[in-house]
Amino acid sequence: MGITRKKISVIGGGFTGATTALMLAQKELGDVVLVDIPDMEDPTKGKALDMLEASPVQGFDSNIIGTASYEDTKESDLVIITAGIARKPGMSRDDLVSTNSKIMKSVTKEIVKYSPDCLIVVLTNPVDAMTYSVFQEAGFPKNRVIGQSGVLDTARFRTFVAQELNLSVKDITGFVLGGHGDDMVPLIRYSFAGGIPLEKLISKDRLDAIVERTRKGGGEIVNLLGNGSAYYAPAASLVQMAEAILKDQRRVIPSIAYLEGEYGYDGIYLGVPTILGGNGIEEIIELELTDEEKEQLDKSAESVKKVLTILQ
Amino acid sequence: MGITRKKISVIGGGFTGATTALMLAQKELGDVVLVDIPDMEDPTKGKALDMLEASPVQGFDSNIIGTASYEDTKESDLVIITAGIARKPGMSRDDLVSTNSKIMKSVTKEIVKYSPDCLIVVLTNPVDAMTYSVFQEAGFPKNRVIGQSGVLDTARFRTFVAQELNLSVKDITGFVLGGHGDDMVPLIRYSFAGGIPLEKLISKDRLDAIVERTRKGGGEIVNLLGNGSAYYAPAASLVQMAEAILKDQRRVIPSIAYLEGEYGYDGIYLGVPTILGGNGIEEIIELELTDEEKEQLDKSAESVKKVLTILQ
Amino acid sequence: MGITRKKISVIGGGFTGATTALMLAQKELGDVVLVDIPDMEDPTKGKALDMLEASPVQGFDSNIIGTASYEDTKESDLVIITAGIARKPGMSRDDLVSTNSKIMKSVTKEIVKYSPDCLIVVLTNPVDAMTYSVFQEAGFPKNRVIGQSGVLDTARFRTFVAQELNLSVKDITGFVLGGHGDDMVPLIRYSFAGGIPLEKLISKDRLDAIVERTRKGGGEIVNLLGNGSAYYAPAASLVQMAEAILKDQRRVIPSIAYLEGEYGYDGIYLGVPTILGGNGIEEIIELELTDEEKEQLDKSAESVKKVLTILQ
Amino acid sequence: MGITRKKISVIGGGFTGATTALMLAQKELGDVVLVDIPDMEDPTKGKALDMLEASPVQGFDSNIIGTASYEDTKESDLVIITAGIARKPGMSRDDLVSTNSKIMKSVTKEIVKYSPDCLIVVLTNPVDAMTYSVFQEAGFPKNRVIGQSGVLDTARFRTFVAQELNLSVKDITGFVLGGHGDDMVPLIRYSFAGGIPLEKLISKDRLDAIVERTRKGGGEIVNLLGNGSAYYAPAASLVQMAEAILKDQRRVIPSIAYLEGEYGYDGIYLGVPTILGGNGIEEIIELELTDEEKEQLDKSAESVKKVLTILQ
Repeated sequence: MGITRKKISVIGGGFTGATTALMLAQKELGDVVLVDIPDMEDPTKGKALDMLEASPVQGFDSNIIGTASYEDTKESDLVIITAGIARKPGMSRDDLVSTNSKIMKSVTKEIVKYSPDCLIVVLTNPVDAMTYSVFQEAGFPKNRVIGQSGVLDTARFRTFVAQELNLSVKDITGFVLGGHGDDMVPLIRYSFAGGIPLEKLISKDRLDAIVERTRKGGGEIVNLLGNGSAYYAPAASLVQMAEAILKDQRRVIPSIAYLEGEYGYDGIYLGVPTILGGNGIEEIIELELTDEEKEQLDKSAESVKKVLTILQ
Repeated sequence: MGITRKKISVIGGGFTGATTALMLAQKELGDVVLVDIPDMEDPTKGKALDMLEASPVQGFDSNIIGTASYEDTKESDLVIITAGIARKPGMSRDDLVSTNSKIMKSVTKEIVKYSPDCLIVVLTNPVDAMTYSVFQEAGFPKNRVIGQSGVLDTARFRTFVAQELNLSVKDITGFVLGGHGDDMVPLIRYSFAGGIPLEKLISKDRLDAIVERTRKGGGEIVNLLGNGSAYYAPAASLVQMAEAILKDQRRVIPSIAYLEGEYGYDGIYLGVPTILGGNGIEEIIELELTDEEKEQLDKSAESVKKVLTILQ
Repeated sequence: MGITRKKISVIGGGFTGATTALMLAQKELGDVVLVDIPDMEDPTKGKALDMLEASPVQGFDSNIIGTASYEDTKESDLVIITAGIARKPGMSRDDLVSTNSKIMKSVTKEIVKYSPDCLIVVLTNPVDAMTYSVFQEAGFPKNRVIGQSGVLDTARFRTFVAQELNLSVKDITGFVLGGHGDDMVPLIRYSFAGGIPLEKLISKDRLDAIVERTRKGGGEIVNLLGNGSAYYAPAASLVQMAEAILKDQRRVIPSIAYLEGEYGYDGIYLGVPTILGGNGIEEIIELELTDEEKEQLDKSAESVKKVLTILQ
Repeated sequence: MGITRKKISVIGGGFTGATTALMLAQKELGDVVLVDIPDMEDPTKGKALDMLEASPVQGFDSNIIGTASYEDTKESDLVIITAGIARKPGMSRDDLVSTNSKIMKSVTKEIVKYSPDCLIVVLTNPVDAMTYSVFQEAGFPKNRVIGQSGVLDTARFRTFVAQELNLSVKDITGFVLGGHGDDMVPLIRYSFAGGIPLEKLISKDRLDAIVERTRKGGGEIVNLLGNGSAYYAPAASLVQMAEAILKDQRRVIPSIAYLEGEYGYDGIYLGVPTILGGNGIEEIIELELTDEEKEQLDKSAESVKKVLTILQ
């Protein structure tokens, strides 16, 4: 009885996981459990405590704990998976996929054990395949397992457009389909500044350059940091999806969703426009594509499928 | 002509500086310039760009750039100094002080050159002495050079009390004087839960334990992280001071202020209750102390003075 | 299944009820149902629609509807009662009490019928007695029926102190016991500016004047408006209580609570410090009072009891 | 010296003016001066005080005062005009125009006297003509005198679309040109849900009905209220424009702007897409229109011109 706070678990206490935890707490979306492996238990506890100590000053009432025990995630409403390794020099793509897939299966087993009714959002790369792994292992209905990539891709796109036009980021929208990064299929005709099609405001050359920069957006940060990858924008993207779900906002958000015939694909996870609300993916929005767009999306789907074969 | 945004420069692009930049931008307090040394230029640019790419999703219109050139800080309204080294195993306290003091003098020279009218808030440890170094080098009036320690110390104290009583952090207040950490002088009689003196709600033993934990609060995080020190709560504390100044809020905030006779000290920077507003430290509030409190504060002032002798 | 939004019904679509609805929606605390009598159905619908039309611009996702049908309040998590008449010239206090008590009983019957598990917060004056009426009619456990007066009284007090000292309202706290307005028992020794006792910052004369102004705070607004009474600060006060409950914040908030022995009273509703969370009043905090304070509180309790006799 | 808060004056202390003042303060955009005629001085002071008394609870540090003296508006950064009479039964349109125009000229004289460098945003109806009146009287450059209508019209449109599709208002955009209400020229092809053209999501019939409802949106509220007109959504719309200006956000916002050749018109104020920032209207965005749109816009411009002739 009584009203209780929502509970959100974030798997993976690295920079992305920790930043996600902070942003969830800042919005008072619920109490947060940050989980990492036993070896990282103390650092994870340290980050969580440091964030909690920011709460009186930032004015949020969300508990944040760090832990290595999945028991602490019990009865989570939402679980966000950021765990996994990054591709290292010399590592083959196949090795990355199989290692992270094993991690997905192992963390999902624990998640499901303690929170059989939760929703799951996945960030780990390659995210289309990893979301599929989680989906298979969890045995949840498809609406409750969701991958993130389009929010981040459009966030980068919107940032570059806002800079190009010297306009508020609040008024720039972007639209992508398909996979993350290189496989991203941008729909420029659905991208606007204050409702005005970008094609009317930016030359084709500059737009092409912005799209290309967006595709390589993750790599740009990796190259600059020299030692690690982006975490602020990825965390913010996860939190937008979490907020849409936890507040049942029914937002139109590009998600990695399980397709059963939509856009002509079946049995794969792919980035498509969705309605996100209290049931997770409440709807997949199907758009008519131009031939060129469809071709790019096919290519994107192919590369997702190729990754999936590694998992068999 | 026209209305322009405030400009805030954060010196030091490490975890604390970067988290400070993010929190300043989230509150749309102004455009942010994150500065680090030339060797760190790319990572600093990377962090700034990653944060900026979070802006469309988090909904803030603040520009954030990373740079190694102080020219980019030109005409800042506020400069926050987080630069400096942390004490390493085997390093003497004196070495730490003289190294960081050199850093303070060098960055202050640059700050003053490009923003002769700015306000400066210092975080670098040992913060009482480092604020003094900046004050000397800047040649600014005392109200415009301010150190942070009390916001963080009370934030930790408030967190521990909120946990102890299972109450909202919003309703817990704390009060400290003197130096940071070990030298902190807590005024428990001015610390409350919803206005109720903590002494009525928590046993003396538990309160003593909480005070002791607060004193060692920085160390607790260092020990847990294993490899670095706290940055979330320190950043949040800096941002609360920045907000009070940039929005001219005249908040009652414990600051490290230059004393000229207040509390019986002269010519040192020490943690005291202040009113923070658009002029920086607008007032120092003098309280009557008990003999015991005065004794502790004397001890705290002594240890500040001892550090200052290293700087001569 | 799935995550759904909280539902809040506000009974009484006058200025206070409408402003409360707006502030609840601005904070996205849930969907809001604004209820008034059939004669006022259209204006209530009009206000609700006007507020909803502000939502795209203010950026909140809360539905707001106006209605005259209690069926629309079905399964509310929280119900806030602002309905009732104001005392008119020539109307005896007894008439006011019995009229509003009838209104309380009638609306409570409807509330309970459709939301048997809800929490109820009452604003209608005389609020101690009206909360009692609602409690009797609802047959709910005492923790789920709560009256508002102390948040508003301290809000006014804090405003006047902030003006007196030219300080941020964020750092001023106040503390009251007992009835609303004239019967208010201020505890100055528990009222602070940044943790510093107000008695050290403001002369006794000025403090007395501020207390007196606070007691008459409702009347001051009535006199200025000429034609109606305060609604902005009352609405904000209700929303703070609602937020503490709906987000299970366990805040220390002065509430009108049902006493069973606390402070030496039994079987009446009176303003006391409470912990407000997901279960409504989770705890009543008992403080030792000075003889003078106890005497004032006795007087306040007496006047509450006198009103209650009218209800027999 | 030192950093000071922005100052915003709101002329007209009715429901719209008061709600605007509240929303400006909630966002801490600056200190607010609410001005009305001497006869309304006390009610205006009462509203302002009531709002200020909400500040400790809502947590905003903005001063709000009510006054009948323009001296109190001295050195405002921004002035918002909501003053004027509403059309009463039996009153001719010409009478309305000439009465409100006189009010515009009289308040503008006072505004300019005390704040010669301010920006002005006008809400009073008929707003295209009233903005022109203010512009003429003020003698300010055209970028500093701006009228509101498109934010409100699109807010209503977005609300209706969000309801139709059961989607978050955050993801719906709308686009209008031309006059307010009946004369509004909606550009459906530039209106989207999550970037998807509304025409793909809503049938033509339903879209037409939504457009028609938007045109009559003001009247719908008037009819429901029975006694007055909308104020929540109008106030929110003014505050969005104020925020864009005061935070120099360079947002893409439909404003009533002075045209000198844009869209083929000269010497009139008309609703067009603009970039709003620290200089007021920083740019007018010219779009290619279809023949049908151009025709509608011509009609809208004609009706504006007709009103202007009354002012000669």
